[in-house]
Amino acid sequence: MDIKEAALKVHEENHGKLEIKSKLSVKTNEELALAYTPGVAEPCKKIAENPADSYKYTSRGNLVAVISDGTAVLGLGDIGPRAAMPVMEGKSILFKEFADIDSYPLVLNETDPDKLVKIIASLQYSFGGINLEDISAPRCFEVERKLKEIVDIPVFHDDQHGTAIVVASGIINSLKIVNKKMEDVKIVLNGPGAAGTAIIKLLQELGATDIIACDQFGILDLESENLTESHKIDLAKSTNPRNIKGSLVDAVKEADIFVGVSVPGILTPEMVRTMAIDPIVFAMANPVPEIMYDEAIEAGVKVMGTGRSDFPNQINNVLAFPGIFKGALGVRASEINEEMKKAAAYAIANLITEEELSAEYVIPNPFDKRVVSAVEAAVAKAAIATGVAEITGGN
Amino acid sequence: MDIKEAALKVHEENHGKLEIKSKLSVKTNEELALAYTPGVAEPCKKIAENPADSYKYTSRGNLVAVISDGTAVLGLGDIGPRAAMPVMEGKSILFKEFADIDSYPLVLNETDPDKLVKIIASLQYSFGGINLEDISAPRCFEVERKLKEIVDIPVFHDDQHGTAIVVASGIINSLKIVNKKMEDVKIVLNGPGAAGTAIIKLLQELGATDIIACDQFGILDLESENLTESHKIDLAKSTNPRNIKGSLVDAVKEADIFVGVSVPGILTPEMVRTMAIDPIVFAMANPVPEIMYDEAIEAGVKVMGTGRSDFPNQINNVLAFPGIFKGALGVRASEINEEMKKAAAYAIANLITEEELSAEYVIPNPFDKRVVSAVEAAVAKAAIATGVAEITGGN
Repeated sequence: MDIKEAALKVHEENHGKLEIKSKLSVKTNEELALAYTPGVAEPCKKIAENPADSYKYTSRGNLVAVISDGTAVLGLGDIGPRAAMPVMEGKSILFKEFADIDSYPLVLNETDPDKLVKIIASLQYSFGGINLEDISAPRCFEVERKLKEIVDIPVFHDDQHGTAIVVASGIINSLKIVNKKMEDVKIVLNGPGAAGTAIIKLLQELGATDIIACDQFGILDLESENLTESHKIDLAKSTNPRNIKGSLVDAVKEADIFVGVSVPGILTPEMVRTMAIDPIVFAMANPVPEIMYDEAIEAGVKVMGTGRSDFPNQINNVLAFPGIFKGALGVRASEINEEMKKAAAYAIANLITEEELSAEYVIPNPFDKRVVSAVEAAVAKAAIATGVAEITGGN
Repeated sequence: MDIKEAALKVHEENHGKLEIKSKLSVKTNEELALAYTPGVAEPCKKIAENPADSYKYTSRGNLVAVISDGTAVLGLGDIGPRAAMPVMEGKSILFKEFADIDSYPLVLNETDPDKLVKIIASLQYSFGGINLEDISAPRCFEVERKLKEIVDIPVFHDDQHGTAIVVASGIINSLKIVNKKMEDVKIVLNGPGAAGTAIIKLLQELGATDIIACDQFGILDLESENLTESHKIDLAKSTNPRNIKGSLVDAVKEADIFVGVSVPGILTPEMVRTMAIDPIVFAMANPVPEIMYDEAIEAGVKVMGTGRSDFPNQINNVLAFPGIFKGALGVRASEINEEMKKAAAYAIANLITEEELSAEYVIPNPFDKRVVSAVEAAVAKAAIATGVAEITGGN
């Protein structure tokens, strides 16, 4: 049986991937009286008096909503809420497996950004955090921004920031290998969608000064008539300091780093050969990357990462989101801010010691048990340092 | 430790009452590839091709949303969404414990009926059914009615219909004890809110012809200036065929059955003594009923039910909603209609054989294991008979 058939089989046989579990037994009148009426009135009254007690008496403190509108699911595109659910259930079980965080997958039959914001905001008191998933760009930027303004709990669009954090950690370590500095390198990003845009912003936060962004029309250029989307106009303003014009081919000349969140095969060996010495490539089109691993190495790439588990340096969001939410929930952070994201990127990178570090090992294995707690601790610390944590220490 | 302290303790120590559980292991790359990417794309594609496959490849077929806006929680009133959550979590664990149905408790920070309808409708593809809970009357009627019009899955406001079904089953059996017929008896209902209104309607469906409804102003009367709420105007039109005027005292004279979903102590022994021979009383104000059990029996009540587990004949919704949803989900019913509710009431009543039936045993024990499957079977059968079932037999 191939993987496709096997995947269908496990989904069908198990009727989906998650179920709920009661923490309390309700098999007798006495147990029912504690878990339900009349006893349940007591935690209700306590929370009514002090809303913060909702974290004390309900499950929300360790509970994340995984929410999608089904408009940008995997590489499948806008397949709608029902068809998106298997991915959301998958995300929820990853939260549980990797960080012991409970999570409900919710798919919304709504695509208007303002309505999505209102719906999701109305759910906030059910949860401790909100993980947005597979919402198409550029709508995802608006949904996340507006939602963050009105809700009191962390909101995190994993397709953007999870990917950005893991890529950033890979680049931090790759730069050690080639002995270059973030401030000095020329970076080309191909595919400024949800993930690409977030990668650019996070790398800038981490000190990158020379990033060129390319879309299907070539280098983002304020003078181009193809530049119509507002997030790309913003990117065009904050990138390309040397004002290079042209296509991806022009962009990658002399570049130190290529980051692809785009389409299979778009980076050719010839293009790699025009890059600076010791080129670094993160080619995350999946399952077929922008350039295949062997081809890239043969063309002189020094450090290569992909989205695949069968090549070295897999960019896998599971390295980031479980620990990020664990850290944010643990200190009851009101948001996941830039400092927390940067802290997560460094925490992932720093798990690999100087002795262990190699071109084939700049990113920890997704199943490395140390990752979640390292990210959790770093994120919690950054939340406290930036004043967004409700719980700052003690017990 | 008293029950209040004990209830707070179990809620705090367990951090709420439910958690999620993964049905699949995701501890290796191979397992991850089946449960998540890339394998998960296969069920997504199948569902995109055929939306009904969402029942095949996701958890929704056995999943109910327990949704509240926190406006009418227990006897506590409008305590808001956060404070309502302990009740909703409790409901969810009852679904799991009594019917092995998975359920997510959701509290909404919204009280406008139209907005509630839109929010809840947008969530429908995440679930197989929607259990509305603790939404205040008369808003609950509008929310349920509008929601049923636009969603494809069963919607059930348990405070209305769950209570109505269990009361109806108790009355069906009580009438056997006193040897009277539903068609002939005079029934007084005090407290025509969510539950009271639903009880009246279901008893009428079951053949009752002479029901008088009373609120705090007395008998619902179309000529009264106190009759302003639309659901009470509707009730006034369909009840009180003998056109009795006055207070509850006037209403209960010669009545065969008193049903209270109102306030403690409002039915006095003197009033009971004015009722017809062999009076039947269901006094469900909780924890202190409209008349205490011993007082009622002493005043001549023949069959008495309350909401309490320490008296005979406990009216407990857990007798109804687990089996009703189990039956509806099992045949993938598009709604829970009147025939399905009636079938549930008879199924609960008929679990008690003629030999077992007594004044102290007209309603099964909430923990009677036979209840769920009896209700499930009856509800599924009624769904098929009324043409609202998607799955009608075979495998």
